[in-house]
Amino acid sequence: MRYSSIPSAQLVVQHCKAKKIKNIVISPGSRNAPLTIDFSEDPYFKCFSVVDERSAAFFALGIAQQLHEPVAVVCTSGSALLNYYPAVAEAFYSGIPLVVISADRPIYKIDVGDGQTIRQDNVFDRHIGYSANLKQDVSHAVKRVEKYKPEWLSEENKDTAQQEIQDYNDSELNTALNVALQIKLPVHINVPFEEPLYDTTTEPSVKALIVPVRDKEELEISDLQNYADIWNTSSKKIVLVGVNPPNEVEQKFLDVLATDSSVIVLTETTSNLHHPNFFASIDSIIAPIEKSEESNVLFEKLRPQVLLTFGGLIVSKKIKAFLREYKPEHHWHIDELKAFNTFFALTHHFKTDVNSFFADFMNQIEPQSSDYFNYWNKIRLQYEIKREDYMKQIPFSDMLAFYNILKSIPKSQHVQLANSSTVRYAQLFNLDPSLEIFCNRGTSGIDGSTSTAVGSAFYAKTPTLLITGDISFFYDSNGLWNNYIRSDFRIIIINNDGGGIFRILPGQEETENFATFFETAHDRNVEHLSAQFGFEYMLVNGVTSLNDRLKDFYKKSDKPKILEVHTPRFINNKILLGYFDFISSRELT
Amino acid sequence: MRYSSIPSAQLVVQHCKAKKIKNIVISPGSRNAPLTIDFSEDPYFKCFSVVDERSAAFFALGIAQQLHEPVAVVCTSGSALLNYYPAVAEAFYSGIPLVVISADRPIYKIDVGDGQTIRQDNVFDRHIGYSANLKQDVSHAVKRVEKYKPEWLSEENKDTAQQEIQDYNDSELNTALNVALQIKLPVHINVPFEEPLYDTTTEPSVKALIVPVRDKEELEISDLQNYADIWNTSSKKIVLVGVNPPNEVEQKFLDVLATDSSVIVLTETTSNLHHPNFFASIDSIIAPIEKSEESNVLFEKLRPQVLLTFGGLIVSKKIKAFLREYKPEHHWHIDELKAFNTFFALTHHFKTDVNSFFADFMNQIEPQSSDYFNYWNKIRLQYEIKREDYMKQIPFSDMLAFYNILKSIPKSQHVQLANSSTVRYAQLFNLDPSLEIFCNRGTSGIDGSTSTAVGSAFYAKTPTLLITGDISFFYDSNGLWNNYIRSDFRIIIINNDGGGIFRILPGQEETENFATFFETAHDRNVEHLSAQFGFEYMLVNGVTSLNDRLKDFYKKSDKPKILEVHTPRFINNKILLGYFDFISSRELT
Repeated sequence: MRYSSIPSAQLVVQHCKAKKIKNIVISPGSRNAPLTIDFSEDPYFKCFSVVDERSAAFFALGIAQQLHEPVAVVCTSGSALLNYYPAVAEAFYSGIPLVVISADRPIYKIDVGDGQTIRQDNVFDRHIGYSANLKQDVSHAVKRVEKYKPEWLSEENKDTAQQEIQDYNDSELNTALNVALQIKLPVHINVPFEEPLYDTTTEPSVKALIVPVRDKEELEISDLQNYADIWNTSSKKIVLVGVNPPNEVEQKFLDVLATDSSVIVLTETTSNLHHPNFFASIDSIIAPIEKSEESNVLFEKLRPQVLLTFGGLIVSKKIKAFLREYKPEHHWHIDELKAFNTFFALTHHFKTDVNSFFADFMNQIEPQSSDYFNYWNKIRLQYEIKREDYMKQIPFSDMLAFYNILKSIPKSQHVQLANSSTVRYAQLFNLDPSLEIFCNRGTSGIDGSTSTAVGSAFYAKTPTLLITGDISFFYDSNGLWNNYIRSDFRIIIINNDGGGIFRILPGQEETENFATFFETAHDRNVEHLSAQFGFEYMLVNGVTSLNDRLKDFYKKSDKPKILEVHTPRFINNKILLGYFDFISSRELT
Repeated sequence: MRYSSIPSAQLVVQHCKAKKIKNIVISPGSRNAPLTIDFSEDPYFKCFSVVDERSAAFFALGIAQQLHEPVAVVCTSGSALLNYYPAVAEAFYSGIPLVVISADRPIYKIDVGDGQTIRQDNVFDRHIGYSANLKQDVSHAVKRVEKYKPEWLSEENKDTAQQEIQDYNDSELNTALNVALQIKLPVHINVPFEEPLYDTTTEPSVKALIVPVRDKEELEISDLQNYADIWNTSSKKIVLVGVNPPNEVEQKFLDVLATDSSVIVLTETTSNLHHPNFFASIDSIIAPIEKSEESNVLFEKLRPQVLLTFGGLIVSKKIKAFLREYKPEHHWHIDELKAFNTFFALTHHFKTDVNSFFADFMNQIEPQSSDYFNYWNKIRLQYEIKREDYMKQIPFSDMLAFYNILKSIPKSQHVQLANSSTVRYAQLFNLDPSLEIFCNRGTSGIDGSTSTAVGSAFYAKTPTLLITGDISFFYDSNGLWNNYIRSDFRIIIINNDGGGIFRILPGQEETENFATFFETAHDRNVEHLSAQFGFEYMLVNGVTSLNDRLKDFYKKSDKPKILEVHTPRFINNKILLGYFDFISSRELT
C-alpha cells in the first residue's frame, strides 16, 4: 500500500479510519491528491467519485442519512469548497454529521493572486459544528528555509516544530471528528498542502494520536414525576412528530399514545410513524378550521394543554401558525442534543432519546378519560371519506397524480421526497406504514434532493423511489452525473411546467410578471436528460396512462427509470384549494 | 405601477435605481416576492429570470464583466443564497461588483426550526466588500405588538421606530452600493420580510435618502521621478499583464514599451494586449529554460531588474515560479485599488489607472539601449517557427484541436475561455488581436464558465464563442437553463473523456485509482444535453472533420450551436509535454 509523503494527509486519513468513517466522497482535483491517494489506496474505505461538489456533498448526506454515521467529502482548493455549502447548511439543521475535508494551498499563497485560492479556513462558520484549520507540515517549510536561511534551523528545531504541528493537528482532528460523532453536526477540516503533491512512501511516517469519543452521559431526568403529574391532569394533549428515521421509536410506546383519549398524535409524512389512530394529514384538520366562521372557538377547542414533540423540522405551515397563536401551556421537546423553540412556547427540553424517555415516562402516566381524541377523530374520519370522494371527481392534476402514485408504491420501498410541492402533497394522504420516507427538511432547499436520493439509495436495503417536481429535478440534474445509480432506482417527476408551488402560496396573483419571475414557466420535458444519464424514460399525461405505466414501473430492469408525469399548469392550484373547501363543507361543531 | 407594501423592499429598489444598477437577475421564490414585484414592475430595470442560483450569480457576473457596472442578483431565503457563493468569491478576487440581495425571514424565525431559514446575515463574510444586514420594517412588528401588548406603543413611538429603521437601512444601502461602485467588490444586502409578502400599493410609501459616490480622488504620484530614474538606469525590465479588459490601455503607450530594447512585454491571453513584439506565450519561453542544463544561468539572464505589472491574476504557473525564485529588485504594480504581492517581491503600488500612469510616466522615461529584448526575442521567434513545425507532425489531440480552433475564430469575436485546460492551451498560441478574450481567473473555478459566457454574451456587441472542456461543461450545464441565449452563441467542447488536465500536472502517475479519482474518466458526449437546451449539435473527432465543421460553424443560424470535439484521452498529455521538449531542442545561449 502507498501513502502520501505528506504527514498531515496521513494524519487525516488515520483519524477517519480510527473513527470508523468508511465512506469518502471525492471530487477530483490536484491539491487534494495527497488525501485522494491515502483514502483510495486503503481498502478500508469505500471511495466514491462525484465531480460536482454541490452534488457530491448531498450525495454524501444521503449516505449519512441512511447509515446514521459520518460520511466525508474531499475536495481541492478554491471555489470547489464553496459548492459544498448548501449541503453543509442542510446537514447543520438536520443534524447529519457530514465531514468536509478541503485541501488548501499553503497559507502564504492566500490573497497574493494565486489561482484556485480563497480564504478557506472557517468559511462555513455560520453553519458548522467545528472548523479545524490544520497547520501545514513543517517539512515543506523547512525546505524553503534551508534554501534561503539555513542558519535559522538546527535539526532539533526542525523536529520540535514538526512535532508541535502534528500535536496541534491531532488535537484539531480529534475535536472535529468527535463533534461529528457525538453532536451530529457537520464539521470542516481544512488541510494546507505544499507541492509536490503526488509523492508517496510505502510506510506511513506519522502515527495519529486518537482521542476516543466520550462515553454517553447518563442523563438525569429526576423531576419526571412533575411532568407526569401535569400530563396526568391534562385532558388535551398533542404529540407532534417531525422528521424521524424509520423504525426508530418502539411501537409499544406509540400504541399507548394512540389509545389515550386525551391525546392526539399528529404525524408528518417524514415522521415514519404509523397507527390507525394517528392524524397523518395535519393540514386537513387545520384548514377547515381556518375557513370556519367559528375558527376562534374551534382553535381554542383544539389548543392543547400539553404539546409533546420529537423528531426534526415540521413541514406543515398550518400547524406552526396554529400553535404559535394558540400556544400550549406546556411544550416539551425530546431530543438528545437540541430543542428548537418552533412555537415560541417551549417550556422544557428532555435531553434524552425518545425510547429512553418513554420507557421512563410510560411508567408514570395513565390514560385519561377525555372527549378530545374522539371529537377530532370523528372529524378526521369524515375528511378521509371526503378526500376519497374528492379524488373521484377531480380531473387529472398534481393532486390526482400524487394520489395514484402514492398508492402505487410497493411495500417497504425507500421513498425520497423532493422539496417543496412534493412533500407538501404527500402530507395530504395516508401512506403505507411499510414505506420509509425521507426528505431534506433542514433548510428545505430544492438544491440537492436528487443527489441525496442517489446517495441514500446506494446502501438502502430496498429499492428507492424519488418523487420530485420539474424545477427541483432540473436544479439538481447533476445528481445523476455519477456511476453509483442502482438499476432499481426510480424517479417520478411531476412536471407542471414550472414552480407550481407559487400558485398555491397565499397572496399570489396572475400578474404579468408572475409566469416569468415566480412560476418560471417553461415547456420542457426531461426526455433528453434521461437519455444523457442512461435512464429508461416514459412520459404520461393522464390518469389512465399513469396507472398503466405504474404497473410495470417498479419491476426489475437493467437501467434505472424515469417516469415523467405532465400535469396541466393552470388547474393544479385550483384543485388543491378546492380540496380544502370540499373537506370543509361539513359540520364542525 | 405597483409597489410592494413593504417599505424596505421599496428602499432597496430605489437605491439600486439611484445608483444606476439596471440589470437584475432574479431567482424564483416566495420570500423575495416584494423585491421581485418592485424590480419587475419598474421598466427602468432589465430583469432576468434564472432558476439555479449558482448559475444565476455567474450569469450576472458575466453581464457585469461586460458592462463594467454592478449587476444585482435577487433570491429567496434559505440555502438559495449559499448557491451564490462560488460566484461571489470569483467576483471578490476578480474585482467585479456583484450585488447580492437576499430576502430573509424575520430574525425571530431563525434557528427555531422554520423551513428555508438559515443564518443569512454576514454569511459571505470571508469574501465580500460589505455586508448590509437590513432591519425589518417596524410596521409588521407593530402589528404583532398592537395585538399582544398595545400599551407599549404610542403613535409617536411607532413613527420614531420606523424612521430610525429606515435611516439605518438607508445608511447600510448607501454604504453597500458605494462599495460596489467605488471599490468594485461584491456586496451582500440581506433584507428580512414578514408576511404578507404579496401586498402592493400604487404609490411608494418611503423615499430613499441617497448618498452619492464620492468623487474620485486625484492620486498624487509625486515621487514618480524616482521610479523613472530606476527605470531609465535598468537594462532588463519585464512588463507582465494579467486579466485585462479589451481596449482598456492606449496603444500608443504599448507601442513605446514594445520598441524599447530593454523591455520585454509578457502578455497572457486574458490580457487582450497585442503588439508584434510582445511575448504572447510565456510558458514557451520559460519551459525550455527549465529543461536546460544551464537553467540557473539562463534564468539569471532573464531575471528583470524592474518588473512592472498591471491587470488581474496571472494564469502561467511557470512565470510565477520563475519570478518568485529569481526575484526582481523592483516590482511595481499599477491598479487603482489593490496590488497582490504575487511574487513576494512587491516594492510599490501605483494607485492609479494604467493610462493615467503611463501618461505621466512616459514623459519621464527614455528607451534604453540593451540586448535584453533582442536576445529573448530571437528565442521567441525560434519557438514560434518550431511550434508551427510541431503542429504539422502531431496527430489529432487537444493541442492540435486548439491550434485549429483558435485560428478559425472570426475577427472581433467575443471569446470566453473555461478553466482550466482551455485557458492554458490558449496561452500557447498567438491569438488574433481583434478577439476579445475573457476567463474567470479570480478563483479559476470550473463552476461557472458557461453561465458567465451566456450572461456576458447577452450584451456583447459581437457574437460569443465559449471554449470549454467536458468536465467544466457538465459541471455548469445549468448555465444553459435560461431564456437568454442568443442564436449566435457558440460553444466548442473539447471532450477528452475526463479531466485531462490532471494528466499534465507534475507528479501524476498511472495508478489504479487515477482514472476514477483524478481524471474521472467517462465516455459520455453532450448530444442529449444539447438537445435538452435547444442547441444545434455536431460532433467531430479528427482534424479534417473539425476544420470542415468550423467553416460553417460561426454562420448565422436560428439556434445556438454546440460543436463537440472528441480527442483521444491517452495521448493528449504526451503531446503537450512533447511540445515543450520539441521547442527546447535549440541553442539557448
